[in-house]
Amino acid sequence: MDVKKVLERVSSGVMDVAEAEALLKDLPYEDLGYAKLDHHRKLRSGFGETVFCQGKPDPYLVEIMKRFYERDGEVLGTRASAEQFLLVKEVVPEIEYDAVSRILKVEKKDKERKGCVAVCTGGTADIPVAEEAAQTAEYFGCAVDRIYDVGVAGIHRLLSQRDRLMKANCIIAVAGMEGALGTVVAGLVDCPVIAVPTSVGYGASFHGVSALLTMLNSCANGISVVNIDNGYGAGYLATQINRLAVK
Amino acid sequence: MDVKKVLERVSSGVMDVAEAEALLKDLPYEDLGYAKLDHHRKLRSGFGETVFCQGKPDPYLVEIMKRFYERDGEVLGTRASAEQFLLVKEVVPEIEYDAVSRILKVEKKDKERKGCVAVCTGGTADIPVAEEAAQTAEYFGCAVDRIYDVGVAGIHRLLSQRDRLMKANCIIAVAGMEGALGTVVAGLVDCPVIAVPTSVGYGASFHGVSALLTMLNSCANGISVVNIDNGYGAGYLATQINRLAVK
Amino acid sequence: MDVKKVLERVSSGVMDVAEAEALLKDLPYEDLGYAKLDHHRKLRSGFGETVFCQGKPDPYLVEIMKRFYERDGEVLGTRASAEQFLLVKEVVPEIEYDAVSRILKVEKKDKERKGCVAVCTGGTADIPVAEEAAQTAEYFGCAVDRIYDVGVAGIHRLLSQRDRLMKANCIIAVAGMEGALGTVVAGLVDCPVIAVPTSVGYGASFHGVSALLTMLNSCANGISVVNIDNGYGAGYLATQINRLAVK
Amino acid sequence: MDVKKVLERVSSGVMDVAEAEALLKDLPYEDLGYAKLDHHRKLRSGFGETVFCQGKPDPYLVEIMKRFYERDGEVLGTRASAEQFLLVKEVVPEIEYDAVSRILKVEKKDKERKGCVAVCTGGTADIPVAEEAAQTAEYFGCAVDRIYDVGVAGIHRLLSQRDRLMKANCIIAVAGMEGALGTVVAGLVDCPVIAVPTSVGYGASFHGVSALLTMLNSCANGISVVNIDNGYGAGYLATQINRLAVK
Amino acid sequence: MDVKKVLERVSSGVMDVAEAEALLKDLPYEDLGYAKLDHHRKLRSGFGETVFCQGKPDPYLVEIMKRFYERDGEVLGTRASAEQFLLVKEVVPEIEYDAVSRILKVEKKDKERKGCVAVCTGGTADIPVAEEAAQTAEYFGCAVDRIYDVGVAGIHRLLSQRDRLMKANCIIAVAGMEGALGTVVAGLVDCPVIAVPTSVGYGASFHGVSALLTMLNSCANGISVVNIDNGYGAGYLATQINRLAVK
Amino acid sequence: MDVKKVLERVSSGVMDVAEAEALLKDLPYEDLGYAKLDHHRKLRSGFGETVFCQGKPDPYLVEIMKRFYERDGEVLGTRASAEQFLLVKEVVPEIEYDAVSRILKVEKKDKERKGCVAVCTGGTADIPVAEEAAQTAEYFGCAVDRIYDVGVAGIHRLLSQRDRLMKANCIIAVAGMEGALGTVVAGLVDCPVIAVPTSVGYGASFHGVSALLTMLNSCANGISVVNIDNGYGAGYLATQINRLAVK
Amino acid sequence: MDVKKVLERVSSGVMDVAEAEALLKDLPYEDLGYAKLDHHRKLRSGFGETVFCQGKPDPYLVEIMKRFYERDGEVLGTRASAEQFLLVKEVVPEIEYDAVSRILKVEKKDKERKGCVAVCTGGTADIPVAEEAAQTAEYFGCAVDRIYDVGVAGIHRLLSQRDRLMKANCIIAVAGMEGALGTVVAGLVDCPVIAVPTSVGYGASFHGVSALLTMLNSCANGISVVNIDNGYGAGYLATQINRLAVK
Amino acid sequence: MDVKKVLERVSSGVMDVAEAEALLKDLPYEDLGYAKLDHHRKLRSGFGETVFCQGKPDPYLVEIMKRFYERDGEVLGTRASAEQFLLVKEVVPEIEYDAVSRILKVEKKDKERKGCVAVCTGGTADIPVAEEAAQTAEYFGCAVDRIYDVGVAGIHRLLSQRDRLMKANCIIAVAGMEGALGTVVAGLVDCPVIAVPTSVGYGASFHGVSALLTMLNSCANGISVVNIDNGYGAGYLATQINRLAVK
Repeated sequence: MDVKKVLERVSSGVMDVAEAEALLKDLPYEDLGYAKLDHHRKLRSGFGETVFCQGKPDPYLVEIMKRFYERDGEVLGTRASAEQFLLVKEVVPEIEYDAVSRILKVEKKDKERKGCVAVCTGGTADIPVAEEAAQTAEYFGCAVDRIYDVGVAGIHRLLSQRDRLMKANCIIAVAGMEGALGTVVAGLVDCPVIAVPTSVGYGASFHGVSALLTMLNSCANGISVVNIDNGYGAGYLATQINRLAVK
Repeated sequence: MDVKKVLERVSSGVMDVAEAEALLKDLPYEDLGYAKLDHHRKLRSGFGETVFCQGKPDPYLVEIMKRFYERDGEVLGTRASAEQFLLVKEVVPEIEYDAVSRILKVEKKDKERKGCVAVCTGGTADIPVAEEAAQTAEYFGCAVDRIYDVGVAGIHRLLSQRDRLMKANCIIAVAGMEGALGTVVAGLVDCPVIAVPTSVGYGASFHGVSALLTMLNSCANGISVVNIDNGYGAGYLATQINRLAVK
Repeated sequence: MDVKKVLERVSSGVMDVAEAEALLKDLPYEDLGYAKLDHHRKLRSGFGETVFCQGKPDPYLVEIMKRFYERDGEVLGTRASAEQFLLVKEVVPEIEYDAVSRILKVEKKDKERKGCVAVCTGGTADIPVAEEAAQTAEYFGCAVDRIYDVGVAGIHRLLSQRDRLMKANCIIAVAGMEGALGTVVAGLVDCPVIAVPTSVGYGASFHGVSALLTMLNSCANGISVVNIDNGYGAGYLATQINRLAVK
Repeated sequence: MDVKKVLERVSSGVMDVAEAEALLKDLPYEDLGYAKLDHHRKLRSGFGETVFCQGKPDPYLVEIMKRFYERDGEVLGTRASAEQFLLVKEVVPEIEYDAVSRILKVEKKDKERKGCVAVCTGGTADIPVAEEAAQTAEYFGCAVDRIYDVGVAGIHRLLSQRDRLMKANCIIAVAGMEGALGTVVAGLVDCPVIAVPTSVGYGASFHGVSALLTMLNSCANGISVVNIDNGYGAGYLATQINRLAVK
Repeated sequence: MDVKKVLERVSSGVMDVAEAEALLKDLPYEDLGYAKLDHHRKLRSGFGETVFCQGKPDPYLVEIMKRFYERDGEVLGTRASAEQFLLVKEVVPEIEYDAVSRILKVEKKDKERKGCVAVCTGGTADIPVAEEAAQTAEYFGCAVDRIYDVGVAGIHRLLSQRDRLMKANCIIAVAGMEGALGTVVAGLVDCPVIAVPTSVGYGASFHGVSALLTMLNSCANGISVVNIDNGYGAGYLATQINRLAVK
Repeated sequence: MDVKKVLERVSSGVMDVAEAEALLKDLPYEDLGYAKLDHHRKLRSGFGETVFCQGKPDPYLVEIMKRFYERDGEVLGTRASAEQFLLVKEVVPEIEYDAVSRILKVEKKDKERKGCVAVCTGGTADIPVAEEAAQTAEYFGCAVDRIYDVGVAGIHRLLSQRDRLMKANCIIAVAGMEGALGTVVAGLVDCPVIAVPTSVGYGASFHGVSALLTMLNSCANGISVVNIDNGYGAGYLATQINRLAVK
Repeated sequence: MDVKKVLERVSSGVMDVAEAEALLKDLPYEDLGYAKLDHHRKLRSGFGETVFCQGKPDPYLVEIMKRFYERDGEVLGTRASAEQFLLVKEVVPEIEYDAVSRILKVEKKDKERKGCVAVCTGGTADIPVAEEAAQTAEYFGCAVDRIYDVGVAGIHRLLSQRDRLMKANCIIAVAGMEGALGTVVAGLVDCPVIAVPTSVGYGASFHGVSALLTMLNSCANGISVVNIDNGYGAGYLATQINRLAVK
Repeated sequence: MDVKKVLERVSSGVMDVAEAEALLKDLPYEDLGYAKLDHHRKLRSGFGETVFCQGKPDPYLVEIMKRFYERDGEVLGTRASAEQFLLVKEVVPEIEYDAVSRILKVEKKDKERKGCVAVCTGGTADIPVAEEAAQTAEYFGCAVDRIYDVGVAGIHRLLSQRDRLMKANCIIAVAGMEGALGTVVAGLVDCPVIAVPTSVGYGASFHGVSALLTMLNSCANGISVVNIDNGYGAGYLATQINRLAVK
């Protein structure tokens, strides 16, 4: 923290009390009234802030995307609709949209992608959440290996991918309905597994609760869980873990 | 139905109206006031009635066990405590008790055990429920193959038992916590799988609800579910299926 | 398993190591990237794979239906919409659609239908789920007897059908709201009963949860439960049981 | 209401303002500080107040039972323990205790019991709740017909009692686990049915929630529900209905 | 029961065995395949069958309404939409529709309305459910007193209606959100109170669950509960109680 | 209470019995049949009644808004839609609508706003609920300080606002998803904190239940909770507290 | 905040940088390793810290109570058992214990009790929670008026206490089962009402959840809710409100 | 995998078919009948298997602990009771027991502990779960920094520990009740945070569900969740992450 530096300046008379007081109170965020943009975040965590687009009023969203883009030269939005894409495009023409993952972004070219994060799904319907995870991890600099439709009801499909699983520093297991994929995967590998329940299913799946509970109660070791459909959170966390491994 | 026979007898004058009326109304059960013993059941379903011991007041339990034993020469009680065993033993000295499955029974000797029902468990802690299922199926005439501690977090343990699984007419998959065993088993075989969630676990297992939901949402085909810890129900149903196969 | 055969060929020099390794790892599924089609399934279970249409992206669905149809000469899709029907029809002109059951299929002609599966409903509103079950069982080769609108609030309607119930190898009891049909049916017959809760109802039916709980807590023997509205699962399981009986 | 009478007296000078004000504010209850005994209740509703014993601190319980007994010459307590019985007996020697229903009471002799309330149970384990209902109704002056262990899994037991059911002015249907008894009964008769879910069961019965939901979702007409295990409430309500019928 | 009569006829030779057998098995319902119309119901319960319109496929609904109308000269449908009204009107031109209660009916003229059922609501938004109850009771022959918007947050509104409440044989208390109306009403009167929770509310009202629980846990005596928004069920039950009182 | 005054007048002959009886029974509300407008409320509580617009039938809403406006010269409606605004505008042309808070109102000019209520939000998406709270408090005479987007995942944003928080008499903390804002705020200040959970979030937020539970289980002192999204309730309560402070 | 003062001292050379840095980082708490005692709290909030005794390991509890007592000359512990009382008494002989409220405390003599907090209960069984609230408020300097057993099922008991309710600055309404007390109280007064659900009840009260939901969904204005059985929290919050009123 | 090696040996005649078949099927686990000990696990994952003691029958537990100890020279058991400790001690005299964490273990001396895992708790009552996590991580070779009682209701306690938090490769945040600790921590650091909800709390904490939901809905990035009270799982996962960092 800069507290020490500020104090040294005050002590040496380079900075006066009022200025120091202001600095000590205000870590650098930009206040738009309806939003406080945390530009300090990149320093603190090594990740730029991202934007959860769903439900943001249009003018707020457009302004926030623009501000981040202007400052950082890139920006990542999640859960965006096609309508939001068109609106943002008017002020940020470089913006790109992927309808499967619902990711809205401008990404700097020639980023190096390091290490390995594997992203698996139980079924085809889980792919949108998996893509949100995969593209988030790629945005933040990870190499990603996609292994889709390897649910445990036909276990040979998963077992045949064991070699690819073994190479990852972190595995994201995305599954709805019964959600057992994460457990079987975690039993096969020695790296951390992030389980993402999806809202895929019907009846007693309760919009992802069944898969969530399965994952929380996993008998396997080395597994943790994020919110239902939270591909972004899994991709972010996998990046942190992958970074530790490639440091 | 005997309606026709009764009517023929009335028509021919062999039986009078009052007698016929009584017969048509009263299928044979024995009324103890606090319980109506369904001796007709064996005719109807091919299974004698069994006694759910837990929570039955002592005098009722003892009397009911005695009545069934006297009429059928054998009797099966489930969820019995050691105390109940001692009480019943005073009036039915032949009674036997298994502390693991909590089954209380007198069983006829030299019953033939036919076909094959396999009973699997995810872990060691699921064995009491599995034994209730296995011993119920044996009581009703099935050969049973026990395959315990083959949970999916170490999938090679289950896969190494594939041959035994393939030989069964019906498989009972008993598991707590995440409860994914049934799905993987059902994906490996072509016979019906009865999934039994157990209350084994803690925290978000919610006394078996997590395993129950997993099983209800199974992605596999050919699987159905009974109540949490209901080993008896699974053993009974497996017997019905096994009987169809060995007929 | 073919492991032995492969090993014998390696031992005799007929097959070399690399080839054997590939075979042992890869059971035959077809990898479309977004889906892994399990053509091995028919060998393993005696049932071809079916397609859960709901929520599948259009291009994936059309491709998957086409692949299965080309390989097997028939294909079964469940929970399809009228729109999906029209899309699939463009590439598979033989496809047929039933708006009540929402089943989309091409079925080989002159299939023999054996044994007997009875399908009952509590009310008229449960018929769509019942038809999914009935048509699934027919597709897989069962003779089906439909007994609809026999809910227990007017018990004489059910009792008058006792003869038909007694003839079945397996009964599917479909009911929403209170879901008590399965229990009364199971008390009348000696064959397995598969209870299917439906989401029919309002208020405290909680979209089928009430019926689901009723069925899980059934006092009757020989009853098991599948997911809410899971007619397909019930039809599949009933077919397995019926096959055991007619073998 | 007496408002008019009071006002007339004030108008005529028979009663002064202060006295009238007091009367209008204070309906007759007796204030013990920790409890306000509603002696006015009998006037208002035709029923004396009863005492829910469970969880009442000993000195409060004893005092309250004594007060009611002294004023009314009889008193009814529900959910009492054997210990509470002994404590109350010290100050109210006439008190009687029934261990099955857990009812603690002194009852006036030679009460006439009128009309007919039928009390049914699904199983033997539901009898304690049924007895609380039956004895409450008897205490308040109803003739009661007990029809126990007639659960719907063996429907002929219930059907054979149809004549007795048809004679009642009101039927109380007590059942745990799946709780379907009320629906079948309501479909057979033309009088109101009060369904009482019990906490009998295990696993997904959730201490009576399953039975409660079944009853709330009943397809039958003329049925309403009280809280889980609330035999007293059912007995009270049945008495109100029976009184309307015998008036 | 007519069993005796049938048997007497068989005994005397007036009826032959086959005819008697048919009669004993088949109580009179009309089988449309997708529905079994219970015309016997009126004999059994004194109420004609009614039609729950919501979710019924159009052709089924029209046919069922027509059949009942033709046989009984009147018919009552609940939860109907304006679209259903127009469809039914094409074949039953006499049909009338009330958009508030969503009741669809033809009613015989000059019915006598007897006794008194009071229908109260907590707020204005509860009126649709209250009207379903009120009009059902009126259809079945009750005089109804409507007392709306008397929720307990402004208790003087309810207290000022005490005289009207005291005159009823049965009171229906309809309330959403917190649902406390039934308790306060039941504390003021001596007749049965039927509490109807409504789905009115937001947030932690959980579509009526909060009100339902409040009512089930009522501290008042003489209160029972029906399903959320089940105005019809309350109106039917109130009619049964009112009939007992006016007999 | 006026009871005394009324009685004195009766006693002195100024008022006759019938008139007094009417007065004592009828506190002043205006009865529209479908609604009972509580004009007495302002006397009793110091707050005029407000109108919950959502779900009110159009003619009722328009009439109710008009009546209050005519009597009080101002009126406040919450949860109004743009359509409702247009309808009310036809009869109350002075009406104003704020699309963010969904508040519909006519407000007297030159109201004095006293004291200080601070309204904080965790994120931008919580602003609609916060504005409902803030504008309600302003309508009832509070000065309001808005502190938005200060969620605890970037704690420095909140800490930098400590001075503003310290000046409030009452703080409203509005947050969805995890809902931890209230706790951190309550730990920083010495005034009451009203926590408002919002339905913002997805997956296991369960439409605000997660935030609600967080707030109910707060480890901080001096915090209480209102219903999910209940900005109005929080604004009203904050006004009561603020009034006590500025009295 | 003292930031300014510290900076001034650094600026003037009175304090050096290291000392200032330490001060700015460390607000005064006492670190016991297993607990960090927040002595700064009294400055910050005007309330000394209290101790939640339940579940605290014995040596921790004794040490923590002793530390607070030594520093402040008084200490308040909640949810203490009789065993904990005896243990603490060994090191703090002045400690006193109230078995009803389970409060363990040493309290300074001659505290002035100001303003007025009213504490109401629905029934006798709610008194322990009410006493926790009342004694907490008294400990922190409020005058308290206890109004017990005024539940809404006998509304005249509550109405007769209106004068006492009107005098309070804040009312705590404690109720279990249906929990409607708070709403009726809030409708009668113009001060804030804090509703405390209790776990009193059985069956569908779900250990206080029913009362909690009732309170959250209250139709009355000016009411907020704390956790089930959280008398302490209500007493604390009421004190904050009462202080604002008496300032 | 060794498949290739086995095949080469078969090809070269070194191994015959039967032997190879056995090897390919049976990965090395030890079958005790009631348990299948996964000695292969250490190879696969780098972690020896541990024993969940709670609920294991005594003879099973003792045997399993002994087997692992004999093979590995160390063993770790979790959730052990003092009774289990004494039983195991009879056959494994070196065993040690920690009553706070309930860990039962023999640990090899002079293990090197690398990297840094920080373990924080919200309160003192969360320490048992935190110690399970901390000691698990230490057993598997991590250096652990314990930061206890830093809950967010007194945020300065946490902020003063920022330096220690910044040094960790992975942070375990253990909290009950509202469970907000993880979010605030994750907002301060750039390493992965594993949130562990505990069952500490009462009322609406629902035995840890409230904390679990808070954590799943965290607004912070880089956070994932394990089951309620699952200290072991968090310690294991943290070790995997820490190993990646120190590799």
